[in-house]
Amino acid sequence: MHDKIHLNMGSGGLASRELLEEVFLPLLGNEVLNLLDDSAEIALGSERIAFTTDSFTVHPIFFPGGNIGTLSVCGTVNDLAAKGATPVALSAAFTIEEGFPIADLRTIVHSMRDSADLAGAQIVTGDTKVVGKGVMDGIFITTSGIGRVLEGLHIFSGGARPSDLIIISGTAADHGVAILNAREKLGFNPEIRSDVAPVHRIVERISHLGPQIHAMRDPTRGGIAGVLHEIARASRVTIKIVEDAVPVRPDVRACCALLGLDPLSIANEGKLIIFTAPESAETVLECVRKLPEGKEAAIIGEVEAEPYSEGSPPVILETSLGTRRFLPLAEGEPLPRIC
Amino acid sequence: MHDKIHLNMGSGGLASRELLEEVFLPLLGNEVLNLLDDSAEIALGSERIAFTTDSFTVHPIFFPGGNIGTLSVCGTVNDLAAKGATPVALSAAFTIEEGFPIADLRTIVHSMRDSADLAGAQIVTGDTKVVGKGVMDGIFITTSGIGRVLEGLHIFSGGARPSDLIIISGTAADHGVAILNAREKLGFNPEIRSDVAPVHRIVERISHLGPQIHAMRDPTRGGIAGVLHEIARASRVTIKIVEDAVPVRPDVRACCALLGLDPLSIANEGKLIIFTAPESAETVLECVRKLPEGKEAAIIGEVEAEPYSEGSPPVILETSLGTRRFLPLAEGEPLPRIC
Repeated sequence: MHDKIHLNMGSGGLASRELLEEVFLPLLGNEVLNLLDDSAEIALGSERIAFTTDSFTVHPIFFPGGNIGTLSVCGTVNDLAAKGATPVALSAAFTIEEGFPIADLRTIVHSMRDSADLAGAQIVTGDTKVVGKGVMDGIFITTSGIGRVLEGLHIFSGGARPSDLIIISGTAADHGVAILNAREKLGFNPEIRSDVAPVHRIVERISHLGPQIHAMRDPTRGGIAGVLHEIARASRVTIKIVEDAVPVRPDVRACCALLGLDPLSIANEGKLIIFTAPESAETVLECVRKLPEGKEAAIIGEVEAEPYSEGSPPVILETSLGTRRFLPLAEGEPLPRIC
Repeated sequence: MHDKIHLNMGSGGLASRELLEEVFLPLLGNEVLNLLDDSAEIALGSERIAFTTDSFTVHPIFFPGGNIGTLSVCGTVNDLAAKGATPVALSAAFTIEEGFPIADLRTIVHSMRDSADLAGAQIVTGDTKVVGKGVMDGIFITTSGIGRVLEGLHIFSGGARPSDLIIISGTAADHGVAILNAREKLGFNPEIRSDVAPVHRIVERISHLGPQIHAMRDPTRGGIAGVLHEIARASRVTIKIVEDAVPVRPDVRACCALLGLDPLSIANEGKLIIFTAPESAETVLECVRKLPEGKEAAIIGEVEAEPYSEGSPPVILETSLGTRRFLPLAEGEPLPRIC
C-alpha cells in the first residue's frame, strides 16, 4: 500500500478499489456499504429507500453541455436511478473559495434547479462553506439524494447472471471527451458536448419488467469498463463486450483515436448500463429507445454462460477484427477532476 | 449585493443569510428548504424522515478533542437531533488533495466510525474524489444523514412561543476557542478541548415531552447568538438571554476576554439549545442533566411574553450589570474554517 493519496485513487479504477479495501471498508464496512453500489438501499418502515452521495470537483466548471451544477444534480439522480429508484429529495453542500464570482454561482444554482426540475426532485436542504483565497480552486459541490425504489425492482451490482444481455442507453465517452476538449483547448469543432442528463425516466420505463432487470449502473468515472469490472466482480460472472456494438459519436471516436484513449474507459454522465434476462432484452431496448435520451440504445454484450472461474479475466472484448482480448480495468481515469 | 463571495458568507451570520436570500432561495426555494432548518423533514409513506447535509473544511484537521472526521459525523447527527430525529443512515463524501498522508486518512476514518458507533448510526454510502496537489488544502468531508423523527416531536425553528424557557445542554464556545487555540498556537494551558460530540441522546431523553418541546437547534457556526436570531426571526418572537446564566468554562472565558470575543457568538459542536413550554422546563433540565453530556445544562433565558414588533431587536441580553442591550447577529464567525 502507498503511504500517500495518489490522483488515481479517486478515479474509479483499480487504485480507487485499493483505497476502499485498505482504508474505508476495514473501518466502516457493514452489510450495506460492502455492496459498493452507487446507492445504498435501506428499509424505512414499509418503504425501500435509496440513499447516495457524490462530490463534484470538475474542472473547468463550465463546459459544453453543462456545468458543475448540472453534473452535481444529474450525478446523484443517476446514482439513485441505477438502484431502481426515483428521486424524492436532494441535498446540496457548497464549498466555495473566497472571491468566487456570485454571477457564476447564480448560473450554477440555476442549472441545478433546472436539472432537479427535469428529474422531478426538490433540493430540500443544503450548506455553504467559504474558505480563504488559495485554500481551494473555485467551487466544489456535494449532492446527496434520497429515492424511492420502484416496486418490483431489486437491483444490485451482484445481480448479473449467466446469459444476461447488456444494454447501454446511448453513446459512450461523451462527457469525458467534452471535459478534455474544454480543459486542454483541443479545439475539436464542432464542439463536443457532455451527455450530462438525468436517466431516471429510463428506469421508470423499464420498471414493469421487475425481476427481469438484474443489474444497472451509470458508467461515470472509469467508464463502461469500470462498471463492467465491478459488476463482473460482484456477480462472479464473466462478461463479453462486442467492441463494434458500442455506440460512439464519430467526433468522440476521432478525439479518442488521436489521443490514444479507449472510449470504453472514459466517463459518461447521462447513460445507463442495464443487465437483463435475455428474453426481455428486446423489450428493454424498445422501451429505452422510445425516450429521446435513449434513442441510441444498443445491446453491447452479454454475460458468458460458462461459470466464473477465479483468476480468469472477468471482462472480455470481442474486437472489430473478431479477436478476443481481456478488457483491463484502468489504473485510473486518464484525467483528474472529470466530475 | 456583493459581486464576489466573501469569507463571511459561509459563517452562519448576517452575510450567510444575505447569500441565501439573494442566490439560493430565489432559485431553489420550496416549502421545505424555505424553513431553513438544520434538517429537512419529509414524509415517506407513514414515516417522517429528517434529511441533512454539511461540508467540513476545518483547519487544523486535528485539534484537541477531535478531528475533521469526528466533526463530520457529529455535525450531521446533531443536525438530525435538532430536528427531533435519531440517525438511521449516514453518507460520507471525501475530497482529498494528492499527497495527503494515508495514515492521517485512516485516523480520520477511524474517528468517523467511533462517532457513528456512539450515535448508533452506520455510514452506508460514500464517495472519494482526489484532486491535484495545490487544488485544495488537505481534506474536506461532506456528510449527509437520514434520521427518523421521534414520535410526538414536531420541531422547527419557527416553533418558539411567548413565555418559552430556553435551555442549553452545556458550556458555550468550547469548539471555536479550541480551534482558535490550536490554529493560532495561543498556547493556553491546559489545552482547551472541543466539545464535539453527538447530542442525539439528549433528544431521546426529552422526546416523551412531545409537544412541550417547541424548537431546538445545535449552536454551531454563529454560536448561540446566531441560533437565537434565527429562531426569533422564524418564530416572530423576542428572546431575552441572561448573560450570567450561560455556562462558560473559565479557561474558555479567559481566552475570549483576552481576544475580545463574545462566547455567545462562538461555535459549539456538542450542544443543543431547547425551547420548551415553561411548565416543562424543570423536567427537561433534569432529563438532560442526567446524561454526562448534559450535566452542565442550564436555563439561559426566555421568550418575552410581549408580542413581537417588526423592526425591534429580536434578541436582548441582560448583562452581568443588570442592564439590557441588543445582542447583535455577527456579520460572520470571527474565524473561517471553524467546522
